[in-house]
Amino acid sequence: MSTDRTRRRGLLLVNTGNGKGKSTAALGILVRAAGYDFSIGMFQFIKSAETRYGEHIAAELLGVDIVPLGDGFTWLSEDINADRALAERGWQRVREVIEAGSFDILILDELTYCLTYGWLEEEEVLRVLRARPSWMHVVVTGRNASPALIEAADLVTEMHLVKHPFREQGIGAQPGIEL
Amino acid sequence: MSTDRTRRRGLLLVNTGNGKGKSTAALGILVRAAGYDFSIGMFQFIKSAETRYGEHIAAELLGVDIVPLGDGFTWLSEDINADRALAERGWQRVREVIEAGSFDILILDELTYCLTYGWLEEEEVLRVLRARPSWMHVVVTGRNASPALIEAADLVTEMHLVKHPFREQGIGAQPGIEL
Repeated sequence: MSTDRTRRRGLLLVNTGNGKGKSTAALGILVRAAGYDFSIGMFQFIKSAETRYGEHIAAELLGVDIVPLGDGFTWLSEDINADRALAERGWQRVREVIEAGSFDILILDELTYCLTYGWLEEEEVLRVLRARPSWMHVVVTGRNASPALIEAADLVTEMHLVKHPFREQGIGAQPGIEL
Repeated sequence: MSTDRTRRRGLLLVNTGNGKGKSTAALGILVRAAGYDFSIGMFQFIKSAETRYGEHIAAELLGVDIVPLGDGFTWLSEDINADRALAERGWQRVREVIEAGSFDILILDELTYCLTYGWLEEEEVLRVLRARPSWMHVVVTGRNASPALIEAADLVTEMHLVKHPFREQGIGAQPGIEL
């Protein structure tokens, strides 16, 4: 499978909606791409650097680094300035790897929350994404993708929750399936 | 992370809809679960045994076997009996691993097509799924999940295509992203 950059048209993919599977599908893309020897970077805007999840362990086996940029459920923080500073530090790192062309496929997991909560300037984010190398695929995940982000995207999928009864039955998140 | 079967409530998850990400999200579950040392089996009812995709190569690195049961685009076959026989052979293998309790997490990729096209008896499939070990998670993917399958499921997510303009521009499937 060719990883030739000159023949590739880089796509901007967005996984949004209130259902499960937005980040999970991005992880699935990571698996496929790792199998083809693409270079892959996955940056997680919400997940905390202090917790190691199954995906981090598995990605290491695949030779892929997943970089958590957040400190967990930042949206529960009472300090909006701290949230903003954290998001901005994360975005700075992402902008650098985009401008350096470091990865064939770049996954920006839960980036939309940083836009929804006003931690990052949407205009600046879209400008950098649009100016990326022509061969670079980018996958953005998170609820409430904005009209401007959808407009900029090549492929938008909405994950819609049809049925989720077990949460109501008091059954917690299942390791391996959800965490 | 505990993989203790006695404390686990096995879930039946269904990823359906006309959008991207149904199988990809199942692959993402495989990655997470492999990171936690769950035993995972992934059976693909449509994908051909003759083609190796990125996901097969990557899954091997994770110590997971992905088993293709189909012969590619079987739904284009002109021999309905051959399709049915192929689906039944595949289902036989799946039923054996369910009854033997071989995996913590079992992914039945694109199973719904076998039901939609009448290659497998839905009643028999649902009976076996319902009678599985209580700790076994099962993930079913494919378009047009039937009302009976949705009724049997604990969690149903519909992947909905919001925007897909690049196909209309004549840009083919992108390796690593879609294949």
